[in-house]
Amino acid sequence: MSEERHLIDRLRSLARHPAARGLADDAAVLPAPLGRDLVLTHDMLVEGVHYLPGDPPGDVAWKLLAVNLSDLAAKGAEPIGVLMGFGLTGDGDWDAAFVAGLARALDHFAVPLLGGDTVAQPRGDGRVLGLTAIGQVAPGGAPDRRAARAGDLVFLTGPVGDAGLGLRIARGALEGPRRLLKAYRLPMPRLAEGRALAPLAHAMADVSDGLLIDAARIAAASGLAVAIDLDAVPLSDEARGFGADRAARLAAATAGDDYQLIAAVPPALREAASAHAVEIGRFEAGTGLRLHDAGGPVPLPAALGFEHGVA
Amino acid sequence: MSEERHLIDRLRSLARHPAARGLADDAAVLPAPLGRDLVLTHDMLVEGVHYLPGDPPGDVAWKLLAVNLSDLAAKGAEPIGVLMGFGLTGDGDWDAAFVAGLARALDHFAVPLLGGDTVAQPRGDGRVLGLTAIGQVAPGGAPDRRAARAGDLVFLTGPVGDAGLGLRIARGALEGPRRLLKAYRLPMPRLAEGRALAPLAHAMADVSDGLLIDAARIAAASGLAVAIDLDAVPLSDEARGFGADRAARLAAATAGDDYQLIAAVPPALREAASAHAVEIGRFEAGTGLRLHDAGGPVPLPAALGFEHGVA
Repeated sequence: MSEERHLIDRLRSLARHPAARGLADDAAVLPAPLGRDLVLTHDMLVEGVHYLPGDPPGDVAWKLLAVNLSDLAAKGAEPIGVLMGFGLTGDGDWDAAFVAGLARALDHFAVPLLGGDTVAQPRGDGRVLGLTAIGQVAPGGAPDRRAARAGDLVFLTGPVGDAGLGLRIARGALEGPRRLLKAYRLPMPRLAEGRALAPLAHAMADVSDGLLIDAARIAAASGLAVAIDLDAVPLSDEARGFGADRAARLAAATAGDDYQLIAAVPPALREAASAHAVEIGRFEAGTGLRLHDAGGPVPLPAALGFEHGVA
Repeated sequence: MSEERHLIDRLRSLARHPAARGLADDAAVLPAPLGRDLVLTHDMLVEGVHYLPGDPPGDVAWKLLAVNLSDLAAKGAEPIGVLMGFGLTGDGDWDAAFVAGLARALDHFAVPLLGGDTVAQPRGDGRVLGLTAIGQVAPGGAPDRRAARAGDLVFLTGPVGDAGLGLRIARGALEGPRRLLKAYRLPMPRLAEGRALAPLAHAMADVSDGLLIDAARIAAASGLAVAIDLDAVPLSDEARGFGADRAARLAAATAGDDYQLIAAVPPALREAASAHAVEIGRFEAGTGLRLHDAGGPVPLPAALGFEHGVA
């Protein structure tokens, strides 16, 4: 299968870190970071489910890396390296463009490719991609999604809703600035913000499925309620071009793929957290999610975000 | 998607290690092993490629874990934990049987499930499974496939060919003892042998694709030739029941899935290595593979083993 051999040669040219052993060994080997905690995550993308066959292959590679690095960011971790699982479906041009995009993304985030596997999938099947990211953090320094406390403030690292608008642009349902499309196709993991907020936060998670659903999940995992001030949820200038009223803010707060971070920060650390994120609400005793704006309570929308797999 | 929820609940019940954070966080978090090297591997199994739709789901789970632990064994590593990527194709009974088998396999090898991802695949597609295994080893203690030296002896940890016969039994092409079928369906990673041999070996690798092809790969990666004595290649008693002549030995030496280890050991350590493995040949200056038996040189078979992906 010379196409597979060709792909493997391309991947080998990316795997220059000594720990990768030139992708010629059974496994990657590297010194454990001294006196640090390891952070490990594995997220997958499926063609026709998480991306469309027509999406640019290089952007799919970026997204595969970015969604995993976002999980590291949510634990305040610095990336050490990644292992990739790649399904071959017989489209050599797609594969080549994917590897070129992967090279750009690895360079951008300065993360080494350490190993992985390539497998043939049956012809015609949707391609399955997996990536494992390994990171490091100060001992005990990775905030737990389950550890928010009553009274903690909800901080958000930046605007939400851009990727949701970008998805509508990608689908041809909307005309809009290229930066919004880019927010959807080339999401940015908030690694620097995660490292800055981790020492301040009781709990932290990334916003992959929607601000409201991900905030509600932190609250539920911590045995708390959460109240969000819809007026405080930041929108980008580009998103504001499509409106900033209650409906637009609700759409932004329930759209996925923005990969901002939500942190639960004790009130005493409000000022420190404000250097890296925006205060949008509060965790409270009780259960459930409450929304309000300047006008008072806001009824919850039918869907708080996307519902799917774990971790 | 309540079937996915059900599966995730089952997986959560397996993820009791504190580092898994109940599969409720973005990532697994655990202390880095102090003063050790990390060993990382990721291998995938695809339905219709690496296993058949009719194979028992619990055996597929065992194999997914075993092939990854075998990569750790080949580096002399002790497993720390695993992350799993699981493709849902809508067959809840299969999923439940898989998770039950995974639970048995994790218990057997005393390896914790630390995290992973579950994703929906398009209906009708072949299921894709991935697993990342993390292990630890003494600093500098993981033998490199590329580091055999001229004069090193070739040691093999045990019989080959059992899984190949087991595959023929599984396909209904052969009648034979259940232990051979089991060798194919429930392969055993040689973790203890790997730990014992790693301090003695310049190079080590597992035999996943066939003794001859995997020995030739170590030689090629090390810039050497390798000579194998076919008479010395061990066969199990059950395999001998189907013959032990040259043809039977060649079949055994080119069959895959046995997951023995091949080690390149300097002659001075022959006695120590002999406690854990059998001497079957020698690495030499030059290139290529030579076979011989008591009668002299043996012509190479057309195929030395299976040819497919990396690592």
